[in-house]
Amino acid sequence: MSATTTRELVEIDERRLLRRLDDLAQRGALAQGGIYRALFVRRDAVGNVWGRIEGSRGGRAIVTGSHVDTVRGGGALDGALGVVAGIEAVTSLWDRFGRSTRILECVAICEEEGSRFNTNFWGARAIADRLEPHEADRARDADGITLADAMRSVGLDPATAAGAVRRDMDVFVELHIEQGPILEDHGPRLGVVTTIAGTAHLEVTVRGQPDHAGAMAMTRRRDALVGASAMTLAIAETAVRLGHPAVATVGTIAVEPAQVNVVPGVARFTVDARHPDPARRAELLTQIGDACRAIARERGLDVEIRMLRDRPPVTLSPRIADVLRRACLAAGTEPREMTSGAGHDAQVLTAAANTGMLFVPSIGGRSHCSDEATAAEDVVLGTRALATALRELAYQA
Amino acid sequence: MSATTTRELVEIDERRLLRRLDDLAQRGALAQGGIYRALFVRRDAVGNVWGRIEGSRGGRAIVTGSHVDTVRGGGALDGALGVVAGIEAVTSLWDRFGRSTRILECVAICEEEGSRFNTNFWGARAIADRLEPHEADRARDADGITLADAMRSVGLDPATAAGAVRRDMDVFVELHIEQGPILEDHGPRLGVVTTIAGTAHLEVTVRGQPDHAGAMAMTRRRDALVGASAMTLAIAETAVRLGHPAVATVGTIAVEPAQVNVVPGVARFTVDARHPDPARRAELLTQIGDACRAIARERGLDVEIRMLRDRPPVTLSPRIADVLRRACLAAGTEPREMTSGAGHDAQVLTAAANTGMLFVPSIGGRSHCSDEATAAEDVVLGTRALATALRELAYQA
Repeated sequence: MSATTTRELVEIDERRLLRRLDDLAQRGALAQGGIYRALFVRRDAVGNVWGRIEGSRGGRAIVTGSHVDTVRGGGALDGALGVVAGIEAVTSLWDRFGRSTRILECVAICEEEGSRFNTNFWGARAIADRLEPHEADRARDADGITLADAMRSVGLDPATAAGAVRRDMDVFVELHIEQGPILEDHGPRLGVVTTIAGTAHLEVTVRGQPDHAGAMAMTRRRDALVGASAMTLAIAETAVRLGHPAVATVGTIAVEPAQVNVVPGVARFTVDARHPDPARRAELLTQIGDACRAIARERGLDVEIRMLRDRPPVTLSPRIADVLRRACLAAGTEPREMTSGAGHDAQVLTAAANTGMLFVPSIGGRSHCSDEATAAEDVVLGTRALATALRELAYQA
Repeated sequence: MSATTTRELVEIDERRLLRRLDDLAQRGALAQGGIYRALFVRRDAVGNVWGRIEGSRGGRAIVTGSHVDTVRGGGALDGALGVVAGIEAVTSLWDRFGRSTRILECVAICEEEGSRFNTNFWGARAIADRLEPHEADRARDADGITLADAMRSVGLDPATAAGAVRRDMDVFVELHIEQGPILEDHGPRLGVVTTIAGTAHLEVTVRGQPDHAGAMAMTRRRDALVGASAMTLAIAETAVRLGHPAVATVGTIAVEPAQVNVVPGVARFTVDARHPDPARRAELLTQIGDACRAIARERGLDVEIRMLRDRPPVTLSPRIADVLRRACLAAGTEPREMTSGAGHDAQVLTAAANTGMLFVPSIGGRSHCSDEATAAEDVVLGTRALATALRELAYQA
């Protein structure tokens, strides 16, 4: 098959694709709206679910997919789109072109979001041989259940987790919703991801002095929450000042003693800070630390900043980006080159395969919420482009 | 006994007083420091504990005391001082002067702080006939146990709570630590309270939009916690601008969905706002509401402000303030006339008796924490003044 023929758009079955997405959205639907789907569905050694076309010439596998778990109260597309679109693309290729020359696989990765256990990228890290020793015994959910026990409860053996490692992958391609507003605001309707931003998670603990809320004069207080509030504003302003695509978010906060009539003595919050450029990301973190320490000094508070997670930015495969670009062109769209602010399985799987990502727009840039949505025509467009790329990759002569 | 003789200082037993305070501080001591003593010790119909000298001439009672419960992690003196000092004062009066002419009582009030059940001033309100119908069935602790069940578990019958009502009190006098820094900063070592500030508790709910913390651009966010942080700073600044003794405190805060990698869609916090002057207090509340609404408007957020509690300022008895002033002078101290920012049983008992309060200094103005302390000499000074005042009130010829 020549380079020219692979650029022909591969047709898919639109109705089947959209019906499967709807079906999957019913799994884990919450009464109050939104979805919560935690790991496990079915399995390799850790719970990833694989489908496979045995290519006529064997060799290293071409894989597509995404994660099947959701954040709590999440939407119907984050992860799910890449799983369902991958199945649709591979099914269409099989229907139209029969057996591929290369091994062609779909994967529903069991855990990416970290919404049940205090770990994340579990499924992708298992594939890429990036699990830590005894990690399944240490990771716990909010009820104290270990990931190892949860695995056993669905018939998986944590001791054999290494069986999930794949050393025979050539390519991993992931279709995902953008989860931000760039494609919607500026177009076009397809994006090819070149870089995934590095994520740092910080825990900031502010210590002041608990006092009686009625009797302690305002000017004599060392209110930890007032300090944390000034820090929260400064952290957001730091990212705004550094400019797009820098982001910084205070996502959780708690105070002690947490009584309506007591001045908070301790405030503890998390910061999620990201930038795709390593130097700018370091600058963002430095400025956040400096801002928190300056505010603490001014207000007579103590501050302690702990790095909970530090994932550097990841560059995806330029070769696979070219394949995806050609596929987008075949679908009639010159794609936008993008960095992803969100983390993705793709970033972990760069350790195991040549990896590429394709984005479709998110309406209003919304994600991690029940309003998450993408126009059906964009879902179809992205799936066609994915199928076209997989054809170039797996149906080589 | 003439007016002149009642101004003689009444001696008390210092060592007994301080030993009793130490003993009481062991009840409910927490491993991590501080004290948590919830209601019940022993009882009238609701759990208040009374001691009584039958006066030779009967009539309406002269009562002294305070509350025996603490906030969680509280100190050794908040409430406890007034209970133990009252017992010491009455014991000393009995030892030195025998039976009083008036009925003279000590009371350990079972609940003031609201630290276990979602109610407060339970003991004082029972005495003053200010309980609400079926209140004990509605008030619950964090484990869902009702106050009624807790009463039954110590042999009290919630149905007979009205038995705690006292219609035969003439005077209630409460010795308490200041819980603020005024006496320490400006002296003298005794204060006579004329007014207790009104307390308003607000619940503020800020609604924005939950979004992906990595993918949603900073400039497109409607972050509920960033809004709540700006409000927290504005609320504190409002009280500072209005000037002492205005206070405003954000004591609790929670966000949803509370995930490190999700922009908070909802932030909910409480405000405790106080001023002893009703007009200034109204001004404080208006300015807090205006500030929150202005910030919400600027940031595209919704805000809802709900009044959880609205207790107006209370003026104490000028007659009892005069008695206390004379007693302070007998102890060698011209007392400071003060307003109390903290709430006290005394404010509730104004409905049942002519009520007065005496303050001793708090070291560093600290209270509602394990560092709460008062110099032993000030504890002794305050107890002497209390005994002297009770002599004037209960040993009339």
